[in-house]
Amino acid sequence: MPASLEILQQRLGHRFRRRELLLRALTHRSFAAEHNERLEFVGDSILNYTVAKMLFETFPDLPEGRLSPLRAALVRESTLADTARELDLGAVLRLGAGELKSGGRERPSILADALEAVFAAVSLDADFAAAEAVVRRLFADKVRQAERLAGGKDPKSALQERLQAQKLPPPAYRIEHQQGAGHEALFDVACDLGALGRVFRARASSRRAAEKDCAAQALAWLAARKK
Amino acid sequence: MPASLEILQQRLGHRFRRRELLLRALTHRSFAAEHNERLEFVGDSILNYTVAKMLFETFPDLPEGRLSPLRAALVRESTLADTARELDLGAVLRLGAGELKSGGRERPSILADALEAVFAAVSLDADFAAAEAVVRRLFADKVRQAERLAGGKDPKSALQERLQAQKLPPPAYRIEHQQGAGHEALFDVACDLGALGRVFRARASSRRAAEKDCAAQALAWLAARKK
Repeated sequence: MPASLEILQQRLGHRFRRRELLLRALTHRSFAAEHNERLEFVGDSILNYTVAKMLFETFPDLPEGRLSPLRAALVRESTLADTARELDLGAVLRLGAGELKSGGRERPSILADALEAVFAAVSLDADFAAAEAVVRRLFADKVRQAERLAGGKDPKSALQERLQAQKLPPPAYRIEHQQGAGHEALFDVACDLGALGRVFRARASSRRAAEKDCAAQALAWLAARKK
Repeated sequence: MPASLEILQQRLGHRFRRRELLLRALTHRSFAAEHNERLEFVGDSILNYTVAKMLFETFPDLPEGRLSPLRAALVRESTLADTARELDLGAVLRLGAGELKSGGRERPSILADALEAVFAAVSLDADFAAAEAVVRRLFADKVRQAERLAGGKDPKSALQERLQAQKLPPPAYRIEHQQGAGHEALFDVACDLGALGRVFRARASSRRAAEKDCAAQALAWLAARKK
């Protein structure tokens, strides 16, 4: 097995018995008909579960409305691509000539998909628990980082302080839509980061809850952005 | 423990050691501050993984683009609410007075969320494998049903035959957007079921592949609709 695959397995903390599973996970559709897309389909859900469980354990006091945006930030393409780069996954990808020439080894979508496929390959090579362990190892720091951000503080205050620290203007909150009243009320609120060119949206049964949720999304985005 | 909770556990195929976990899973936010939303957050991903894995195993020849719409149909709210009704979950839900009066025991979103929370409660009461086994038991027939639909036949032909059998007009396919060419081409195609008032959309690198994908989505929708 080439040295680079050895190193990858060390970094994953899993040694494959069935080498073909690892190779399949690293195979883009541009390289061969036996590519990694079906593995990615399963791996995506292994990642989603494990990160959900880690957040559930790490933040016993956070409501679901705060956990969901943290998970979204941890499992989205750019975070996965960063993680794949930490593993130097690009170097061992099997890509067709066209993809190679157009910089496929660096393309975030290709890196993210291959990483998810690797999780499924581990689960098929051993079992679900082995794949969960690999995800936990790779995402432990990122979940802790999310912890620091979400830790205790109200997300609106945390967001404002964070922007201030970067000499940026405070976020602008606005109600974009409102319907019903009392128990049935629904507020669609936007949190506009202005200079950063990003708007986050949330819906909740109170304006305050919706504002908190968008602020939490914005915080998660800021955290994942700053590697 | 009330007889109805006994029956629920028999139907799930899991006996809870920690009764409080089951009760928590059945508690809507309108009933108590200790409600089921955090459990639902975890349970949703247990369901997603297990159904993905079942489809992966059941359809060794289907590409990811065909598996994803099948999963979407199997895990969406209406399918989950149907499954919750088969378990008579509504009868044991713990709802606030307002929700009770407005028919909360029958509300699809409340039933679906509670069912997902139950999966997480099983995993915390025992382990992940126990929760996976419960999901497999509850979804085995539905996955098999998906199998019959997807089995071998081209989804476009299968869809046309199915609509014909119901004396409905054939679906109308149209290209809504097209960009690039050759290896880089992308087609956005819609499949319009006309009389049924539903349009399904897919994007793929060929018109034919995109048409197949929307037809597969339409089939999955028809299958889940007809209980």
